[in-house]
Amino acid sequence: MNWTPEPPLPRWDDLVIAARRLDGNAVVTPLLESPLLNERLGGRVLIKAEMLQRTGSFKFRGAFNRISDIPSEMRARGVVAFSSGNHAQGVAAAARELGLTATIVMPDDAPRLKLRNTRDWGAEVVTYDRRRESREEIGARIATATGATLVRPYDDAGVIAGQGTIGMEIVRQAAAMGATVDTLLCPVGGGGLIAGIGLALSVLSPQTRIYGVEPMGFDDTGRSLKTGHRVENDPDAVSICDALLAPTPGELTFALNRRQLSGGLTVTDDAVRRAVATAFDLFKIVSEPGGAVALAALLSGDVETRGRTVAVVCSGGNVDPEMFKVCLDRA
Amino acid sequence: MNWTPEPPLPRWDDLVIAARRLDGNAVVTPLLESPLLNERLGGRVLIKAEMLQRTGSFKFRGAFNRISDIPSEMRARGVVAFSSGNHAQGVAAAARELGLTATIVMPDDAPRLKLRNTRDWGAEVVTYDRRRESREEIGARIATATGATLVRPYDDAGVIAGQGTIGMEIVRQAAAMGATVDTLLCPVGGGGLIAGIGLALSVLSPQTRIYGVEPMGFDDTGRSLKTGHRVENDPDAVSICDALLAPTPGELTFALNRRQLSGGLTVTDDAVRRAVATAFDLFKIVSEPGGAVALAALLSGDVETRGRTVAVVCSGGNVDPEMFKVCLDRA
Repeated sequence: MNWTPEPPLPRWDDLVIAARRLDGNAVVTPLLESPLLNERLGGRVLIKAEMLQRTGSFKFRGAFNRISDIPSEMRARGVVAFSSGNHAQGVAAAARELGLTATIVMPDDAPRLKLRNTRDWGAEVVTYDRRRESREEIGARIATATGATLVRPYDDAGVIAGQGTIGMEIVRQAAAMGATVDTLLCPVGGGGLIAGIGLALSVLSPQTRIYGVEPMGFDDTGRSLKTGHRVENDPDAVSICDALLAPTPGELTFALNRRQLSGGLTVTDDAVRRAVATAFDLFKIVSEPGGAVALAALLSGDVETRGRTVAVVCSGGNVDPEMFKVCLDRA
Repeated sequence: MNWTPEPPLPRWDDLVIAARRLDGNAVVTPLLESPLLNERLGGRVLIKAEMLQRTGSFKFRGAFNRISDIPSEMRARGVVAFSSGNHAQGVAAAARELGLTATIVMPDDAPRLKLRNTRDWGAEVVTYDRRRESREEIGARIATATGATLVRPYDDAGVIAGQGTIGMEIVRQAAAMGATVDTLLCPVGGGGLIAGIGLALSVLSPQTRIYGVEPMGFDDTGRSLKTGHRVENDPDAVSICDALLAPTPGELTFALNRRQLSGGLTVTDDAVRRAVATAFDLFKIVSEPGGAVALAALLSGDVETRGRTVAVVCSGGNVDPEMFKVCLDRA
């Protein structure tokens, strides 16, 4: 009676179901290429532009897939989520699309744009002080009081499966461009995005080497991969990458990532600013700092590009104008 | 012996050929939608994101199609073009792709980004003073001296046909989203883009009402549509829309536009800045001022959106960071 089951890891079948659910509901975001950048790097760089996804980040995919899983008798009680912003918008939009109410717990210092958009999507926003209060506790309290379903930002099989549809699209789109992906770089916060993509590639493109990219000071997944167990970040660390400030890898995500990833890379805030400016200049896309870490690692020369095809996930574009202007000054 | 044939207008068959040539060479740019904007306007807005095209604007399409037409015995002499920037990059990239050399005549006050990128594409750039010299004369002189083929920016059947592939894509992509386009808004400089799109829609979606959008002071096409003959702009007019400063409608483009367009709209520079900021905020795309005039007209309430589907062509994203920052201050 005391036995607790292992939380179930998502499998390939879950990705197939997620892809079917998202068909027509999520944007098949383009895989962009710049011949000028290719020439400079001596290989092919393919940018998966998830800022063009609904709500401006990949998070809509996982949220939509997870909320689609909620049994009909639970739907009237709605959903609750905690998030620095992108998951908030993804849950708010997916819930509205599927006819559920949403309550979102957000830090009071989240980018104004993310707070405003989450409210615009019709969600009720509850703010908290990131240094004094636990969003997990607040979220759990609301879930208990209202019976709402908690939609976790990454440590959830349904959420991971939804993000995995990005990996399916990358392989298919690259093939249509005559390319197979040698290396894939992906931003890592809690690790749900790269866990889902890695699961897709383990079936569709097992030869691809996958690297997670984290901001300096938030390299919990990179260090956890080295030590073999989940480690935490220094709670005093700071970064402009507000989307990637998870304190430690998720349980499910790390179980997948430890066997799917080839390693972790770390980038400075300054490299991130330059990557945001390069995305503006060469690809005409708006990337938020956290969304640009994988591009930053590529531009810093952290992986071999000569003669290779490197897929780079740019995961979101929800950035305030003031921060974007600071990044453009690095162009 | 003195009879000069009418220059031939492009026809539907030319668009079909252009689409075949561009398949796999040009990006099928996405048609983006923002549920938040739709809600605000009470209709559906579909943004054709041509800044995601190769070279950052639609111009690659027309240039690639036109240069593909050059007979093999002429190819060794290369191509020459005059342009404020987007056509320059389009011709430079298409020529390189097809193995021809390119000389580009550009105003010395063109955005630095456009000058640099054109050189990066391998073209030889010849600059001139926009207020004292005629780019047409310089271009013609180079063509005569070298035997290079002059690739006109808009008044050319092959160029117009290439741009028309955008119209074919819009109709197909809208259908896949369950929409038919009631109204289409498109930026107008010399009128090649809207002439090609209008030709496509005249066959594929004849019920669509098409409006050209021009910056204040450069509404030559709008006024020409009213008077029935081609009029010129005040040579002293100024605008931040560097891509749309053509002095008068083209001969071929106006012959098409006068029968294909429902009218012309005019927008202020300030409305354009706000549209650039809105494209950043809601669509996560980088639009240059000239590329955003159609979105500016939409946001200014110049066309009915309630209960309608409005396609908006955002034609390019080649904007210097300094100008972009000024636009973001209008957000």
